[in-house]
Amino acid sequence: MNKELLRKYAELIVKIGVNIQKDQELYLNSPIEAASLTREVVKVAYEAGAKAVHVNYNDSEVTKAKYQWANVETLEYVPNWLVEYYHEIVNSGGAVLSIISPDPLVFEGVDQIKIMKASAAINKKIQFYREHTMASKTQWSIAAYPNPVWAKKVFPNLTIEEAESKLLEAILKASRVTENNDPVTEWKNHMEKLDEHSKALNDYAFKSLKFHNSKGTNLEVGLVENHIWAGGKELSSKNIWFAPNIPTEEVFTMPSCQNVNGTVVSTMPLNYNGQLIEDFSLTFVNGRVEKYQAQKGQEILKSLLEMDEGSRHLGEVALISYDSPISNMGILFYNTLFDENASCHLALGNAYPMNLVNGTTMTNEELVKAGANKSIQHVDFMFGSSDMEIDGIQKNGKVIPIFRKGNFVI
Amino acid sequence: MNKELLRKYAELIVKIGVNIQKDQELYLNSPIEAASLTREVVKVAYEAGAKAVHVNYNDSEVTKAKYQWANVETLEYVPNWLVEYYHEIVNSGGAVLSIISPDPLVFEGVDQIKIMKASAAINKKIQFYREHTMASKTQWSIAAYPNPVWAKKVFPNLTIEEAESKLLEAILKASRVTENNDPVTEWKNHMEKLDEHSKALNDYAFKSLKFHNSKGTNLEVGLVENHIWAGGKELSSKNIWFAPNIPTEEVFTMPSCQNVNGTVVSTMPLNYNGQLIEDFSLTFVNGRVEKYQAQKGQEILKSLLEMDEGSRHLGEVALISYDSPISNMGILFYNTLFDENASCHLALGNAYPMNLVNGTTMTNEELVKAGANKSIQHVDFMFGSSDMEIDGIQKNGKVIPIFRKGNFVI
Repeated sequence: MNKELLRKYAELIVKIGVNIQKDQELYLNSPIEAASLTREVVKVAYEAGAKAVHVNYNDSEVTKAKYQWANVETLEYVPNWLVEYYHEIVNSGGAVLSIISPDPLVFEGVDQIKIMKASAAINKKIQFYREHTMASKTQWSIAAYPNPVWAKKVFPNLTIEEAESKLLEAILKASRVTENNDPVTEWKNHMEKLDEHSKALNDYAFKSLKFHNSKGTNLEVGLVENHIWAGGKELSSKNIWFAPNIPTEEVFTMPSCQNVNGTVVSTMPLNYNGQLIEDFSLTFVNGRVEKYQAQKGQEILKSLLEMDEGSRHLGEVALISYDSPISNMGILFYNTLFDENASCHLALGNAYPMNLVNGTTMTNEELVKAGANKSIQHVDFMFGSSDMEIDGIQKNGKVIPIFRKGNFVI
Repeated sequence: MNKELLRKYAELIVKIGVNIQKDQELYLNSPIEAASLTREVVKVAYEAGAKAVHVNYNDSEVTKAKYQWANVETLEYVPNWLVEYYHEIVNSGGAVLSIISPDPLVFEGVDQIKIMKASAAINKKIQFYREHTMASKTQWSIAAYPNPVWAKKVFPNLTIEEAESKLLEAILKASRVTENNDPVTEWKNHMEKLDEHSKALNDYAFKSLKFHNSKGTNLEVGLVENHIWAGGKELSSKNIWFAPNIPTEEVFTMPSCQNVNGTVVSTMPLNYNGQLIEDFSLTFVNGRVEKYQAQKGQEILKSLLEMDEGSRHLGEVALISYDSPISNMGILFYNTLFDENASCHLALGNAYPMNLVNGTTMTNEELVKAGANKSIQHVDFMFGSSDMEIDGIQKNGKVIPIFRKGNFVI
């Protein structure tokens, strides 16, 4: 592994991703497989002035064993200390970094209902924490690191060692970390470009977007009044810029969750709690999924949609040019962080308050009244294609072409 | 790595070490380097009927960075959730397993005062938890697993890979895990033998022990009235047998902490918070260390003794035959779990209530009145030798030879 590139990646994560401030605490979630990156991030964060870095390691094999062996009552039990832990993160004003190293099929064979119930139990108890981060009250970011299983899934014809090395290379390339550049400067430029798209879309203040392609997608997504297009960087309530996703190519906004009609057809597999849903379509009537069909993973899609009422409605719509850098690599990463940046996508579930003017200071009731979707989950799925056509419909009925042949034209 | 041997080791740890009960929870502390063993232990524990296994991974490099960079105020801050976490362990009645994979010099170069202050702050807040385990109110156990740095320290002339493999082999051998045996049965026999020594010593009900050898040790250690010699296995308050240390060769009891006089000379290096103290002697007057001298690590010895008043008094005396299996391997492990089982040793600091009749149900005041030492720490150091002579002095003044030429003679 190239130590210098790892250092650059850690700097990008610390200085652009969470943009850690002097005397701020950093809460870092990491799989044990990502220890080399985590240790580098810890060092860079302290050098940048972090007050303390708290690392919380996880191990998907241990988690899987718990899902397999523990009974539902045990899985649904949320100890008080864990809730207190999330209160501590909120109260300390700390930034939150999640390094992920997914095994795309980690929970295959595990009873999906148990996973759902366990997730629902914890999500209910730490709803305050989810709202804290989703409303960008502090800086948070997600970045990735390879592991052997993931690497072999992405590059099945290589040896484990070669595959891991190749996947790290792809992650770094997707994240704009190369031997000859300064990724921090590179990202500042990249985020300015995303800003330009957001500004153009914000200026049009569309009432809805119409999607159409040859895969079968024919969908009109209403947008909430006073929606905000965002992308790349976000501004926290404390006026600190940060980049929630490394990498990122999307600009996204808030659908009006009762005003979505038509059918959308997926173009990439959806990895939900470690299990794949493939070649699926959803049909919306007045914002709600009323029909759904998956070639593979129908039961998983069903349990996704039945998590709560909000899981049947949209919380996000995101636009990505079909010839984005990640898309051009032609690699299916089997992970949303990357694959969502290769293709236009929608999310079932909770909306981001930041996508609405004054959204982050609104009560839940005010958000719902404005058309924001509420759910204990937020699940992205991809539906972009090389022939995607998108039109924006203004209040006066005027139609503005946004995408032609899969790419931005505004 | 031999998968079958690892499985046997995990079974020993689960079935003899913590002796997990059906529907009991297991709290498992593990360094990330020991993930292979931890994953195996998790599996075996569930198979044995554990209700849930909670794994808490640690990373000494991350801890070291915190000691290096965070200020004292930050290090002394103990968040409420962490205290609640230890309350949860106590309240759940869960067993506690600590897998260790020490780097003997992990904190070399770190300001010792910062480490002391951080340890003191957390120890004060979770005193209730330490008392819970030290009084054997639940089953707890410690076992070890190699890491590259430790392996190279023990076997400096081997490659890292060879050294790790050799160290694992030594750990398994010391723990009586071999290809041709059933370690669980082996341990039941071994613990019976330790029981025989304890019973003989308990029957004599010595008033004190006199130690003498050519290294300069000339020490009389008073024992508390109604002391109990123990070793190998322990019985929890809930009447469950467990083995706190894997491996173990010692029988040990409680010194009368104001009745120790004379000089003891160490025969192995003492690793204290990741730093070595070597070739040291302590002179006791009425139980208190009044003089001390180390050829190496004098300042570290000083900070050890100054942690609190109890750190100047003894909390444990342990007898091990010089030709014990671990001693016969002739390996300096640079770790107490192994090295203490190669040689007679003493501990500065807190006494174990279980070494006193009814000790585990006594109040702190009653324990102190009985002669038990109290401290926020418990630090073992080795002073056994091939020419160690030990005599037991009975109440009537009768002298009984216990050790001659380094070995048990009773």
